[in-house]
Amino acid sequence: MSETGALTQEEQTFLRPFLPSHACASSASEGPIQDSRPPAKPDDRPFVTLTYACSLDSMIALAPGARTTLSGPETKAMTHYLRLHHDAILIGAGTAAVDDPGLNCRYPGATLQDQPQPVIVDPNGRWDAKDKKASRLAAEGSGKAPWVVARNGASSQEALRQSGGDYLLVAGDASTSSMAWLEILQSLKRKGIRSVMIEGGAKVITALLAQPELVDAVIITIAPTFLGQGGVSVSPMPGTANGQRTNAAWLRQASWRQFGADAVLCGTLQA
Amino acid sequence: MSETGALTQEEQTFLRPFLPSHACASSASEGPIQDSRPPAKPDDRPFVTLTYACSLDSMIALAPGARTTLSGPETKAMTHYLRLHHDAILIGAGTAAVDDPGLNCRYPGATLQDQPQPVIVDPNGRWDAKDKKASRLAAEGSGKAPWVVARNGASSQEALRQSGGDYLLVAGDASTSSMAWLEILQSLKRKGIRSVMIEGGAKVITALLAQPELVDAVIITIAPTFLGQGGVSVSPMPGTANGQRTNAAWLRQASWRQFGADAVLCGTLQA
Repeated sequence: MSETGALTQEEQTFLRPFLPSHACASSASEGPIQDSRPPAKPDDRPFVTLTYACSLDSMIALAPGARTTLSGPETKAMTHYLRLHHDAILIGAGTAAVDDPGLNCRYPGATLQDQPQPVIVDPNGRWDAKDKKASRLAAEGSGKAPWVVARNGASSQEALRQSGGDYLLVAGDASTSSMAWLEILQSLKRKGIRSVMIEGGAKVITALLAQPELVDAVIITIAPTFLGQGGVSVSPMPGTANGQRTNAAWLRQASWRQFGADAVLCGTLQA
Repeated sequence: MSETGALTQEEQTFLRPFLPSHACASSASEGPIQDSRPPAKPDDRPFVTLTYACSLDSMIALAPGARTTLSGPETKAMTHYLRLHHDAILIGAGTAAVDDPGLNCRYPGATLQDQPQPVIVDPNGRWDAKDKKASRLAAEGSGKAPWVVARNGASSQEALRQSGGDYLLVAGDASTSSMAWLEILQSLKRKGIRSVMIEGGAKVITALLAQPELVDAVIITIAPTFLGQGGVSVSPMPGTANGQRTNAAWLRQASWRQFGADAVLCGTLQA
């Protein structure tokens, strides 16, 4: 199931301080964990990595519902390297519907054992497991069957259970952005998930950028292109202090590196 | 007039392929010009570098009219290094009014001879030279008196001429974004300007991003913060091809480097 190139040693070293500790502990050959690791997260939720690819004008897609390629081959490889080091990948149902992503790890050498658990947050019951790439990959043994996060009382789909998937039922209202993120994360932890990569879409990312206490690392790929006005933008609500607008969010320990034509920025969200 | 630190040799080497050739030719000790230099520009206009600092969500200010600091000390030093290597700095009248910038070069060792010529594009006659920082610096001998680009027939201000400044009269309609940029650039060339850094604001940058034939290098500073929705955004109008939206602009020869907590991206606009 390998479709991407491998990262260089320098690229792996660049990413290591921002990987979940269980991922580093399991690769003794990669050397000790650096001291710049974010402070320990609470034990009742997984390590959370927020990650996405955007244009120079902070757009993740040309238009709502338009599947848009931004990452070059080098940052695509990086995404699969990150998937290899996380127990789960989480996306919103809108992105799952538009992109129909495989949600598996295609890094060289990745086995079925290495595959991350796909998680789709679907408060409105929009996502249907039938005829989806992730379901097909699970049937072929190239990925795990998705879990769907639904609201308590949502009707379940037989297709999902037949494919080996499952439901996580949580409270929270009808919008992805105001889902009870702590509850979702805690329910993932109870099912054995130690780390989760949250990959999109814009609503999910924007919601999490506003909850720094739930995010342990941020890894952003920036492609050297402008998608242009009217695209799907990642920009959180601004802050306020003393009646004045202030920056919406800050990244600490900012660490940048060029991968191909793109840049990768790693950091932690300032609480 | 030095207020910034100096760039390291590696940082200077990183920037060199994107500097105007006259700047490199005058620094023989910096070594040969690299082959990745953009193709030769037409002789009738200066070398044009488009440069600005933005947040991760591609905002240059928290709100219209709000002066917002984004660059850290390292990228601030880079800006002054770039000013040292250009004959002129150009900004729009809106930015000149809001930020009241000094528009001089405060890089270590910069002399009055090294100072770039400030140019303010002011189609609506908004900018008044009186009580402005750039005028004061010119009076003190720490910078040059600004030139104002105005429309033919605009009334001139005595204060500007008294400070040693001048007017460049061009055609073009009433908005900065639709000023006749080629005409402005040609008139600068006729006054001896071999290279110009175009530094903002958002309207000016957006207009130039849509005219790749007028831009020889793009140098963007990205700070690891989100300013948030409602800020002043840099995002050009999208393209279209076969009735579909396409990317608004592409950067070629993309070259990224971390400066402090910020990243600097150099590239050329794809025509």
